[in-house]
Amino acid sequence: MPTIDYVTKVARDIREMKIRGAGEIARRAVQALKITAERSKTRTPKEFARELDTAAHLLLATRPTAVSLPNGMRYVMQRVHEARTKTSDVLELKKVAVKSSNEFIENSRTAIQRIGEIGSRRLVNGDVIMTHCNSSSAIAIMRSAKKHGKKISIIVTESRPLWQGKLTARVLNELDIPFTYIVDSAVRFFMNKVDKVIVGADAVAANGALVNKIGTSLMALAAHEARTQFIVAAETYKFSPETMIGQLVEIEERDPSEVLSQKERRHLKMIHVRNPSFDITPPEYIDAIVTEKGIIPPQAAILILQETFGKIPMEELLGYRTVPTAHD
Amino acid sequence: MPTIDYVTKVARDIREMKIRGAGEIARRAVQALKITAERSKTRTPKEFARELDTAAHLLLATRPTAVSLPNGMRYVMQRVHEARTKTSDVLELKKVAVKSSNEFIENSRTAIQRIGEIGSRRLVNGDVIMTHCNSSSAIAIMRSAKKHGKKISIIVTESRPLWQGKLTARVLNELDIPFTYIVDSAVRFFMNKVDKVIVGADAVAANGALVNKIGTSLMALAAHEARTQFIVAAETYKFSPETMIGQLVEIEERDPSEVLSQKERRHLKMIHVRNPSFDITPPEYIDAIVTEKGIIPPQAAILILQETFGKIPMEELLGYRTVPTAHD
Amino acid sequence: MPTIDYVTKVARDIREMKIRGAGEIARRAVQALKITAERSKTRTPKEFARELDTAAHLLLATRPTAVSLPNGMRYVMQRVHEARTKTSDVLELKKVAVKSSNEFIENSRTAIQRIGEIGSRRLVNGDVIMTHCNSSSAIAIMRSAKKHGKKISIIVTESRPLWQGKLTARVLNELDIPFTYIVDSAVRFFMNKVDKVIVGADAVAANGALVNKIGTSLMALAAHEARTQFIVAAETYKFSPETMIGQLVEIEERDPSEVLSQKERRHLKMIHVRNPSFDITPPEYIDAIVTEKGIIPPQAAILILQETFGKIPMEELLGYRTVPTAHD
Amino acid sequence: MPTIDYVTKVARDIREMKIRGAGEIARRAVQALKITAERSKTRTPKEFARELDTAAHLLLATRPTAVSLPNGMRYVMQRVHEARTKTSDVLELKKVAVKSSNEFIENSRTAIQRIGEIGSRRLVNGDVIMTHCNSSSAIAIMRSAKKHGKKISIIVTESRPLWQGKLTARVLNELDIPFTYIVDSAVRFFMNKVDKVIVGADAVAANGALVNKIGTSLMALAAHEARTQFIVAAETYKFSPETMIGQLVEIEERDPSEVLSQKERRHLKMIHVRNPSFDITPPEYIDAIVTEKGIIPPQAAILILQETFGKIPMEELLGYRTVPTAHD
Amino acid sequence: MPTIDYVTKVARDIREMKIRGAGEIARRAVQALKITAERSKTRTPKEFARELDTAAHLLLATRPTAVSLPNGMRYVMQRVHEARTKTSDVLELKKVAVKSSNEFIENSRTAIQRIGEIGSRRLVNGDVIMTHCNSSSAIAIMRSAKKHGKKISIIVTESRPLWQGKLTARVLNELDIPFTYIVDSAVRFFMNKVDKVIVGADAVAANGALVNKIGTSLMALAAHEARTQFIVAAETYKFSPETMIGQLVEIEERDPSEVLSQKERRHLKMIHVRNPSFDITPPEYIDAIVTEKGIIPPQAAILILQETFGKIPMEELLGYRTVPTAHD
Amino acid sequence: MPTIDYVTKVARDIREMKIRGAGEIARRAVQALKITAERSKTRTPKEFARELDTAAHLLLATRPTAVSLPNGMRYVMQRVHEARTKTSDVLELKKVAVKSSNEFIENSRTAIQRIGEIGSRRLVNGDVIMTHCNSSSAIAIMRSAKKHGKKISIIVTESRPLWQGKLTARVLNELDIPFTYIVDSAVRFFMNKVDKVIVGADAVAANGALVNKIGTSLMALAAHEARTQFIVAAETYKFSPETMIGQLVEIEERDPSEVLSQKERRHLKMIHVRNPSFDITPPEYIDAIVTEKGIIPPQAAILILQETFGKIPMEELLGYRTVPTAHD
Repeated sequence: MPTIDYVTKVARDIREMKIRGAGEIARRAVQALKITAERSKTRTPKEFARELDTAAHLLLATRPTAVSLPNGMRYVMQRVHEARTKTSDVLELKKVAVKSSNEFIENSRTAIQRIGEIGSRRLVNGDVIMTHCNSSSAIAIMRSAKKHGKKISIIVTESRPLWQGKLTARVLNELDIPFTYIVDSAVRFFMNKVDKVIVGADAVAANGALVNKIGTSLMALAAHEARTQFIVAAETYKFSPETMIGQLVEIEERDPSEVLSQKERRHLKMIHVRNPSFDITPPEYIDAIVTEKGIIPPQAAILILQETFGKIPMEELLGYRTVPTAHD
Repeated sequence: MPTIDYVTKVARDIREMKIRGAGEIARRAVQALKITAERSKTRTPKEFARELDTAAHLLLATRPTAVSLPNGMRYVMQRVHEARTKTSDVLELKKVAVKSSNEFIENSRTAIQRIGEIGSRRLVNGDVIMTHCNSSSAIAIMRSAKKHGKKISIIVTESRPLWQGKLTARVLNELDIPFTYIVDSAVRFFMNKVDKVIVGADAVAANGALVNKIGTSLMALAAHEARTQFIVAAETYKFSPETMIGQLVEIEERDPSEVLSQKERRHLKMIHVRNPSFDITPPEYIDAIVTEKGIIPPQAAILILQETFGKIPMEELLGYRTVPTAHD
Repeated sequence: MPTIDYVTKVARDIREMKIRGAGEIARRAVQALKITAERSKTRTPKEFARELDTAAHLLLATRPTAVSLPNGMRYVMQRVHEARTKTSDVLELKKVAVKSSNEFIENSRTAIQRIGEIGSRRLVNGDVIMTHCNSSSAIAIMRSAKKHGKKISIIVTESRPLWQGKLTARVLNELDIPFTYIVDSAVRFFMNKVDKVIVGADAVAANGALVNKIGTSLMALAAHEARTQFIVAAETYKFSPETMIGQLVEIEERDPSEVLSQKERRHLKMIHVRNPSFDITPPEYIDAIVTEKGIIPPQAAILILQETFGKIPMEELLGYRTVPTAHD
Repeated sequence: MPTIDYVTKVARDIREMKIRGAGEIARRAVQALKITAERSKTRTPKEFARELDTAAHLLLATRPTAVSLPNGMRYVMQRVHEARTKTSDVLELKKVAVKSSNEFIENSRTAIQRIGEIGSRRLVNGDVIMTHCNSSSAIAIMRSAKKHGKKISIIVTESRPLWQGKLTARVLNELDIPFTYIVDSAVRFFMNKVDKVIVGADAVAANGALVNKIGTSLMALAAHEARTQFIVAAETYKFSPETMIGQLVEIEERDPSEVLSQKERRHLKMIHVRNPSFDITPPEYIDAIVTEKGIIPPQAAILILQETFGKIPMEELLGYRTVPTAHD
Repeated sequence: MPTIDYVTKVARDIREMKIRGAGEIARRAVQALKITAERSKTRTPKEFARELDTAAHLLLATRPTAVSLPNGMRYVMQRVHEARTKTSDVLELKKVAVKSSNEFIENSRTAIQRIGEIGSRRLVNGDVIMTHCNSSSAIAIMRSAKKHGKKISIIVTESRPLWQGKLTARVLNELDIPFTYIVDSAVRFFMNKVDKVIVGADAVAANGALVNKIGTSLMALAAHEARTQFIVAAETYKFSPETMIGQLVEIEERDPSEVLSQKERRHLKMIHVRNPSFDITPPEYIDAIVTEKGIIPPQAAILILQETFGKIPMEELLGYRTVPTAHD
Repeated sequence: MPTIDYVTKVARDIREMKIRGAGEIARRAVQALKITAERSKTRTPKEFARELDTAAHLLLATRPTAVSLPNGMRYVMQRVHEARTKTSDVLELKKVAVKSSNEFIENSRTAIQRIGEIGSRRLVNGDVIMTHCNSSSAIAIMRSAKKHGKKISIIVTESRPLWQGKLTARVLNELDIPFTYIVDSAVRFFMNKVDKVIVGADAVAANGALVNKIGTSLMALAAHEARTQFIVAAETYKFSPETMIGQLVEIEERDPSEVLSQKERRHLKMIHVRNPSFDITPPEYIDAIVTEKGIIPPQAAILILQETFGKIPMEELLGYRTVPTAHD
């Protein structure tokens, strides 16, 4: 299959949710970029970069609001463009593209495990932990704590409308970690008995605000009210560089049928269903963010961003997100 | 049908949810008490009082945690016992029992309408109102506002686990009031655009705390955070006199299958489902309580209680709630 | 001059601000009502009541949003209507009208002095007090403290747009009380050095909320942030009975020229000047209300209202405010 | 021993702390008043009242800042003065004095037990309770809970400078209630694991503020931060009627040697020791006050005060506290 | 005109407000420094540096509390001093001085436009924005939003005592942006309908605190209370490096006549007018700072400071602000 | 005395509190490490490193929860291990060990003085400062302010259970700074008259949380409530690098006899004494941290940590704290 067809197929799989989960999407897209580089038959650096850019934008177009995906593309492309300033040897550029692709994939894979190790150090025997939705990173912390012999128990919310709490329930059950399963609106009822809240992240903004599953900010508010620690588990590729230059993280609104079926809505002419997938938790309700590079206060998100994306010209940041830009 | 059979039937209907809704339950139980009085063939005040007490406790046993029901019983029995100190004529006592039963039923019926009128004065054109669960009193305010030509719109939560939001949706639809339907965890996402939150009450405690559908306190917290008014619509027979002497309002925990079906729980050996029906909203998050007697701050709940139940000896308060007590 | 002309003249003087200040307006209007009663030549109680009602509504129409004025009318008319249930002697009714008019006027005159005495007990030597606008009751507290030899100093805001701070400055100067004069927006800058904030009231609502000069709620917020006591000085006839049944206190919006002259606005086609005269301070920012009957927490405003207006049927409360109602 | 000598002796014992504890002081002083009445040889109501007044002021002078003591005096004297308006028979007045003295003493004795019963209903099995200083009423709640079979444990602060925590420790030990003993500054460290804070009261002010042992307000603040309930146990004779008319509750400053011995201070020429005995907890940090008449929110303290002292002219309130006033 | 005369003239123009606005002042002063360098006839690096230092201190003395001005001086002088460690060629030093002067001026000019672009990305259609005083950077954000077709409206405070709100009104009118004009004390009245507050900065301190026009902190407090975003627009040369080493930003107190004319104060012997120009908004009330380098949380102000001034020895930081220091 | 004996002796002195104070302990331990290096007779880098490591772990074992001590060890060992990658000359390594030891000791000595200078710039004439326990750095700020002629006064808490307030009292007395001495529970009573709270630090965590003497967090909470600045004085070697990777700072629990003597506890069978030495102040209650490198907001603690320890592999961070690890 020609390279472009392969990339197209990966893009379609992402769009159609055959590939899902922010991390997995990013890794598979970078993999497609890497294959594009390996198979490239271009002869000049300019042509090579253009081929990669084309593939990248094809992949980016699949999920316009994701953060991990453009971050993966940026990771590779930034290194390729840097290399072009030093060499005009296409073979060298290929090596850079492949190496940085491999790096991103490898980093992504180990990040979650690393977060588990670091985060679990903050748990103590007997901790009651509340979580929301279904976060690999948050669960990694629980798994690691269990592995180190700490007795913990979890409170899991069902996470309407898509019931991701059931996924979390299944994982915890396999891990032999006892858990309590509740409806989303019971969060405050139980909060006074919770020691720590641990949630994942869909995105972290430059000012430390957390974008995560709808209901997260309500849980954070209730935790704040009860002096309960609120901890976010977030790989650094979840940090959104565009927010450094003001771009708002777009809150996806999904199909109303997830909330109320077409049939039930049929006779309700006055109804308007709203189904935002995420909400925003302000940094003042977050006690710490656990990343694979260590624990930071939310206000230091900007540090992670500067370290990771600081060398990229501001305009490029937007460029990799929204529109295919002309090059050279 | 003998009187006692009639009372027994009403009691069964309440227990089996054929009669439902705090107000309706209270009215029907008082009706049964009235019929008992009317048909009574007792000859001495002592026998008469004992017959009524027996019926009352039979009815009370159906829903041990309700507040409106014992308040209905108290309303009638308090007046009968008072009358006994002044007369020994059974016919006089009958009149008292029937008159006070009629009063309670009538008061209860007009209270909701009155609350609608009073509460709607606080709404202004263009108000966006959020509500939770399905409260007749809260809806009465919206209906009255609509009737007076005020353009309002409502945000309705689905109210897991029993989806009472769908009932509210249907009523609003019939009232031609536009509304937005959301999941419970989206409350904070929309709160900044809400002008007033209006909810009903299952019970109001002596210190002004509100016992209402699970999730209410979370909504109150989010309203407080956003400087949004939080208004409770509560008939005075929802006020719990037992709390004046320290009794906690028992929070009912219902069947876990309402949250997660038996089938889904089967293979989850580590799961523990918790399903509390109500939570408690502290008075500092409540701006006003609309009763049929007027608007009060939550801290004045004690005034309503003293006015309504102040003459009852403290021990009696508990007596009418939990156990059949011997008399005479 | 015929009675009706006299009443009309008083009404006009109020409307044209020749008579001003909530207390003075109320006293002069009640005086007019008293004179109407004294001079009445009616022969039946019905005619007498109608004549008084006509006068009362003529006076009420002058300042539809005031609270003290309708409270004055209510004070007299409630007693007249009550008397009618007991007597059909017009002379008796006259006596009631005159006596209750005198009572209201006298009570009003002594209330401020009484507030001064009570409130000043809460001040201690060295207190720094912040005040807003120009309140007789608040100043009465300062005057009384000064009289009792307490050394206090005041921070006075200029109180845009009408510069009432200049009036307060003049009074304090005459009282030989040292004061600091600041712009309204400097309130938070000085708050940490303030011991107590003392302000007056235009109205107090049933839930303890304070309606007062625009800027008051901002001062209360800043006081709350700095753990500075916030005290309201309010005669009981400032308490609004209509709020017991849901009526909102209407916030008057005055002429934009008070804020920006017509000339300055002329070339600003995109401008919209807003000039609300009052704002609402929620009860949670108020530590105490000093009335002539003693000190209460804001949540006990309902007590004052019930004590003063409790016997009036709810519908009457509205009746005396807004529209002339037919009688008999 | 002549009556006046007996009264003088009781007064001296109070002053010298041979009689101690707010309740005990009040009861013993009222007892002395009663004996004065019983033995009185006066012949006219005027002389009788004067003799009692003299005794009362002699007793009041012993502890100028107490609240229970003047409330005891008021309880008796108010009834005597009232009786004088109805009778001029000295024997009748004697009976009134004796009866009301007995009432006060009896009420006071049963109040604490009643508070224990009422308050303990709010505790549940497993509750961790924090307390401060040594309060009979707070301990009565724990004792009653224990008696009803509820398993509770207590966290006791040492309560510097007078180590009253040791007294509480001894009582709890005798009650077989397990407790943790900590320094005062560890309050926040443990607060997140506390279910309820229960403290006593030295005085309750008209706006619901609590005057209690130094450190109480810090504990209340920490409870508020952690969403932990803060409950006050206070007999109604602890409510201060003078605060209704603005009188501040004077905060006693005791001997610096309680904090640092004279010897240790000797060479510290720059030192100034401050030793306030009490601090003031604002009502917004108090969830409920348990009195022998039932549970109230702090804002309803004014209700208790009005019910108990409402008939006393305002000036009398001050009169019984500070200076001997002339009568007749 | 001799160089020194030119510098003296610029200094005088700044002092006499002929040159005004923090940015303009800084640019003109740097311009004067550049001209000094270009015309310099000194022969040794030491002499050259001394000449520049003399000019710099002459300029600094004009407005001792400004932040942008010393930052401009530092920008140039730091680079000159660094160059001296590498070269002893006066011509080279001249080039450095001229180049860095040009850089500063250019950076300053583009910073505001850049802030406009970045900040406007955070605005959405329909946003109601409140602003205070007259800030070029804040207005740049509104202008840019308008340019990108976003429909916004602004609430403008009059900004006593100097009425800068009128300047803002004029600019917005020219931009065809609709706005509401209010008195400063109406801020809380309107806050619940505001989506974002955007203000400029006079200085930003090392801990993220904002120094801005008196009233800003009150607006921030009210925004915080209502969960309204509070955004600061600040060029990085507004960040105060001295605060890194503890220096407080001095709050200028201006002429009392700005608040109350001499004539009006004449007869008020007890008056003391205070006229602080700025107040301090703590970082916890600031959601984000928009700089020309991107958006940061206020707590990351230290990052901007370290990046911009990190290489300067701490003592130098103070040196350039307050006193002419000896060199070499 | 053989080297190892010397190290052993220093270790014993630390363990037995002959050497005390976090800074002094760190300096003396580093001194021992330096002497070990100077006297070393090892021949290979590997042997040399092992000898130093052995000494370091012997010293570390004395106080497992300290932060300054392992930071001292790390400072030296990190530089030695780095040097090993560049040289295999033992003499060179010795020089590195000695030089870095001297650096650490010197830095530590000057840090406190530097903090005094920087911190004192934030104080103004007339400031009332509250402090807790006995912190050299906090006192350095007061000393420096006094030296610069600022009139300040201090409020000192006795700091139970170990009465460190007495030490602070003695130092302030020698410095001729007037101070008020209070019990720990009086903190809130005085807070409204305090301008700034200044305390030291036992450790600062990666998220800006402060670990300090028990009671510190309560003081911070009370300061926050009263809008009083809360300032921490902390040398950078107090910052805990382990917290970057999730390690919790262990809170030492000391002997119960410090709180209540064995004799007093003897008959109290239900007692459990808890004696935590430290508590944790969350960053939102801290306005600024004064370090020898300048003032930072607490959220920038991570910056200090990254700058100081950023090059150390994460695993090494833990290695130097808890267990002797094998090398080479």
